[in-house]
Amino acid sequence: MRSQKISQQSKVRITDSFWRKRMDIIRNEVIPYQWEALNDRLPDAEPSYAVQNFRIAAGESEGEFKGMVFQDSDLMKWLEAVAFSLEQDPDPELEAIADGMIELLERAQQEDGYLDTYFIVKAPDKRWKNLRDCHELYCAGHMIEAAVAYYEATGKEKFLNIVCRYADYIASIFGPEAQKLSGYPGHQEIELALVKLYRVTGNPRYLKLSQYFIDERGTQPHYFDVEKEVRGDHEQFWWKNDYAYMQAHRPVREQTNAVGHAVRAMYMYAAMADLAKETKDEPLWEACQALWQNVTRQKMYITGGVGSQAYGESFSFDYDLPNDLCYTETCASIGLVFWAWRMLRNEVNREYADVMEKALYNGTISGMDLDGKKFFYVNPLQVSPENITERQERAHVKPVRQKWYACACCPPNLARLIASLGHYIYSAHDQQALIHLYVGSEIELDLAGRQVKLSQQTHYPWDETVIICVTPDKAAEFTLALRIPGWCQKARLTVNGEDIQLKGCMKNGYVYLERLWRAGDQLKLHLAMPIERMRSHPAVRANAGKVALQRGPVVYCLEEVDNGNFLDQMVLPRDQALKCYFDKSLLDGIVVITGEAERAGRVSNETALYFNQGLSSDSLKFKAIPYYAWCNRDPGEMLVWIRER
Amino acid sequence: MRSQKISQQSKVRITDSFWRKRMDIIRNEVIPYQWEALNDRLPDAEPSYAVQNFRIAAGESEGEFKGMVFQDSDLMKWLEAVAFSLEQDPDPELEAIADGMIELLERAQQEDGYLDTYFIVKAPDKRWKNLRDCHELYCAGHMIEAAVAYYEATGKEKFLNIVCRYADYIASIFGPEAQKLSGYPGHQEIELALVKLYRVTGNPRYLKLSQYFIDERGTQPHYFDVEKEVRGDHEQFWWKNDYAYMQAHRPVREQTNAVGHAVRAMYMYAAMADLAKETKDEPLWEACQALWQNVTRQKMYITGGVGSQAYGESFSFDYDLPNDLCYTETCASIGLVFWAWRMLRNEVNREYADVMEKALYNGTISGMDLDGKKFFYVNPLQVSPENITERQERAHVKPVRQKWYACACCPPNLARLIASLGHYIYSAHDQQALIHLYVGSEIELDLAGRQVKLSQQTHYPWDETVIICVTPDKAAEFTLALRIPGWCQKARLTVNGEDIQLKGCMKNGYVYLERLWRAGDQLKLHLAMPIERMRSHPAVRANAGKVALQRGPVVYCLEEVDNGNFLDQMVLPRDQALKCYFDKSLLDGIVVITGEAERAGRVSNETALYFNQGLSSDSLKFKAIPYYAWCNRDPGEMLVWIRER
Repeated sequence: MRSQKISQQSKVRITDSFWRKRMDIIRNEVIPYQWEALNDRLPDAEPSYAVQNFRIAAGESEGEFKGMVFQDSDLMKWLEAVAFSLEQDPDPELEAIADGMIELLERAQQEDGYLDTYFIVKAPDKRWKNLRDCHELYCAGHMIEAAVAYYEATGKEKFLNIVCRYADYIASIFGPEAQKLSGYPGHQEIELALVKLYRVTGNPRYLKLSQYFIDERGTQPHYFDVEKEVRGDHEQFWWKNDYAYMQAHRPVREQTNAVGHAVRAMYMYAAMADLAKETKDEPLWEACQALWQNVTRQKMYITGGVGSQAYGESFSFDYDLPNDLCYTETCASIGLVFWAWRMLRNEVNREYADVMEKALYNGTISGMDLDGKKFFYVNPLQVSPENITERQERAHVKPVRQKWYACACCPPNLARLIASLGHYIYSAHDQQALIHLYVGSEIELDLAGRQVKLSQQTHYPWDETVIICVTPDKAAEFTLALRIPGWCQKARLTVNGEDIQLKGCMKNGYVYLERLWRAGDQLKLHLAMPIERMRSHPAVRANAGKVALQRGPVVYCLEEVDNGNFLDQMVLPRDQALKCYFDKSLLDGIVVITGEAERAGRVSNETALYFNQGLSSDSLKFKAIPYYAWCNRDPGEMLVWIRER
Repeated sequence: MRSQKISQQSKVRITDSFWRKRMDIIRNEVIPYQWEALNDRLPDAEPSYAVQNFRIAAGESEGEFKGMVFQDSDLMKWLEAVAFSLEQDPDPELEAIADGMIELLERAQQEDGYLDTYFIVKAPDKRWKNLRDCHELYCAGHMIEAAVAYYEATGKEKFLNIVCRYADYIASIFGPEAQKLSGYPGHQEIELALVKLYRVTGNPRYLKLSQYFIDERGTQPHYFDVEKEVRGDHEQFWWKNDYAYMQAHRPVREQTNAVGHAVRAMYMYAAMADLAKETKDEPLWEACQALWQNVTRQKMYITGGVGSQAYGESFSFDYDLPNDLCYTETCASIGLVFWAWRMLRNEVNREYADVMEKALYNGTISGMDLDGKKFFYVNPLQVSPENITERQERAHVKPVRQKWYACACCPPNLARLIASLGHYIYSAHDQQALIHLYVGSEIELDLAGRQVKLSQQTHYPWDETVIICVTPDKAAEFTLALRIPGWCQKARLTVNGEDIQLKGCMKNGYVYLERLWRAGDQLKLHLAMPIERMRSHPAVRANAGKVALQRGPVVYCLEEVDNGNFLDQMVLPRDQALKCYFDKSLLDGIVVITGEAERAGRVSNETALYFNQGLSSDSLKFKAIPYYAWCNRDPGEMLVWIRER
């Protein structure tokens, strides 16, 4: 087994005040809680059956398969989160639990390598008969990802061997050869997992299989029609009879418009970026870029949420970004982080890192409460509780976070994202080290033949200053590149107290410092974070005449608990000064934005519904909090986009 | 047969320029077109099967029942419209067609009086087994209404006799007696029809049956549960398992909150008002008033549209009046006219007439194009075509009017409303004549023992002046009452050139003129119609910071064809002067409103989705047209509520 794993990834230590707290919550709350959930031991949540299904598959328990067709994947995401957590914080007890689970996986694995409990237990004759709907390859993908992470965290090979056997078997089923099926997953995921497996094992079979799935997708005759005919299924496909739902309406290289189920799209685009890199596939890279432009310039919420409609949890048309009807699944924002990271690895450009950061500080972590006990699946940008509970079109939106879902994709997905945060901060190649995110952390890198330690100290995203220490084991010449975020209009950088003229050394939003670095060199980066009034492209109807408050990467919102209800009636005068301060006692410590606004005067139920008088207005001292922290106090209304006068 | 029909109703002759045109369209276009539709002779529309179903029921044709379970009602609404049209404009050819159809009804009628083609042809064993869903009593109601109208228009009794036999049979099935079913309709309609039948025949059996249906509704044990059990049906009722859908969640006298399917609600409330009058039922009248307050103060669009959600074509919660998601079925606005008229008959108060007028000039006739050839089922207050075609939540909204629907309730309903407009203008009792609507027309009344002719000449709703001539056959003392519309802040009235001080003789929005009237007396009513900027109760979130333009009873909108797209980006300065003028060549002649507004500058697709700069704005000369006339030119965006700065 040849490990190609990128050295810096396993060596980041997170010390950051903002993220460390969340990682601790993942380790101390979420992972143990989810283990209980996966084992059906939570008294107040629907049973998951995920572990039990494996016991039955292994012949060690009686019973029927229960749960969704993709129930296995919850467990795999959990195992992956455990791996990332162990990487950061070794924990023999947790590792023993994971090892036990992996042994159960091994016992459940079939002779031929197959390992999906739904089909082993419930429908052995249906294996690979309905790729469109049945998530077999999706579950396999999550298993592979978990195994790679577990191997990288622990060095143990058992799980990796399990998934290699499974992947080898899958490669014997799918491919261009006449005797093989020319299928591909209905829910993309295995594509990016196979690239990871290739990178960690060096076995090109896995890269080729990933490539095959991507290349075959959406070609004619359409595989989903072919397998449908074989099944004798004559039903129309539920999503407008359109395979755009799973981005299989045309070959991926011809796709320039993000459509369909947003999570599927994100996972596929991530795999496309991986493959473009590994295979130097220029048309594939061009497709990635076109899709990136479309998503980030026409289809993304200011929070980094994507997928604006509930129907099919899908993308809508360009600029259709309603704030109260949106779906913006937590998992889709997580997928956007995965994709952005891969785009960034292919091309160092802050555009990618800015979006990754936006999603990380807003639309992903909004999915979890500050205790890590409750989760949003859907992340609206405007909520009025009665609107949600009483109107059918908003039935997908929940006014408060929920415990454990029957379809529990988001909580374990968030767990694995946060636990793996260390993977997204730095990268290095050749003579360069790059810092993409400002997160208190340390890393050791091999650079120019030397061991170089980098560390960041910061109170980001609240504080404007980041101190970076560079400690090569011996003075060495290399390039250190720092991202100057797109939201920052005024950055200042000193090296050992000496001002750097950024203009001369900026490229694609990164400042490149090429010099002889010595132990003790210190960089001080100052990123001005004034409160910004963000506006939308005029084609975004929902935001006409409205502003969103943002400071640094953090998007703000108003909550009823601070500002009363009928937040739509609040109007922020254009010249109103806004202030901010750090409140360490509020919501685990946040920067609060305050100001004065007008609000239409209150009237009673007796008031006519329509009248020709102007409404009187009151003055209101308002308080805005970070969007991600909403709904951690008394539930009620929430609003991101505020009317401006 | 004792006719109690109210004399003035059959003697109104409409001469009005606004309405006469529409009545001619109903007579010359809609009625003949619909007859072709009902006979499946339209090459470009789905067949209706309505007439064919009766032929099969009469044993005169072979085949299966086709169409909706309530397909008969389309034909009945058509027959009622024909009756109203004949009343206004005798037409022997049309009457012969109707007579032929009525003869077919007679031949299709069963021995016992039953007459519903779905059950006669398709499910004879299912009669009265599923009142909740199967519309039997609803269809019977429309048949009764048609028969009453036909009798009043033509004096012919055949159709009336058919429905009396049917109603007698129904009265033998339903009632409090032990051997009878204690059921009531799933779709209300027969209740108000039976009151009409009672009024025209004088037979108290019909009044009692109507009362029974209303009194029994929503009582426990719940009839719909009882019949469900008998059917062996264990499914939950599709609408949240809640009989509020058909206002059967509790006894009607306990209902104060308008809920459920809006058309059902309107028809039921209308019947409740009828019964409250006929039976002097005070608690029932109080329920009518409470529901009226709720609908008109919390749940009605400024166009007179009701029923703001597509799910169940139903009312939503108080003040939930989104402009782009609304359902606001044409039929529901029509039902609001029916209800308002009955409220007004019970209590002379302009509040009722104002709403009736609002619906007549806006939310009802918006359902039909100016040619009477295409129809809206759903009447949104804001449309962007791509938003409709590409977003699932708006699938119920159509960007352009449609030809003939499979469920064709709205076109024939509009036909019968417009054809019967003469019924809503005047009323008279004792020594009083009341004018509720300003419509060019003539009527002859029995008043104080004299024959009195009243006539109106006006170019309403465009012109501010109405000339009313009073012509008693001999000088007579009686009271003439004129409504001063609620939208009018400044009314002036002269009688024979002499100013009347309105203050002294106003009551509930009507000015009462009690005097000795002589032939040749002339009243001149001047109703000032400045352009009003209407605002909404602050609890209407959708309209926060927005105004709707209104002049007289007519609500205005912006269309893309006049103002370009992205109408949301238009902002009307608060102090901007607005002008209006009559354009006789536009949209059959309308008053146009114009002014200047600002619009956020155009930017390209390359523009960032979010940015911290203010948007530049252009000045725009805009043009607003009456809401009812939208979508009669190039289709595109439409907007009623305009942002105001």
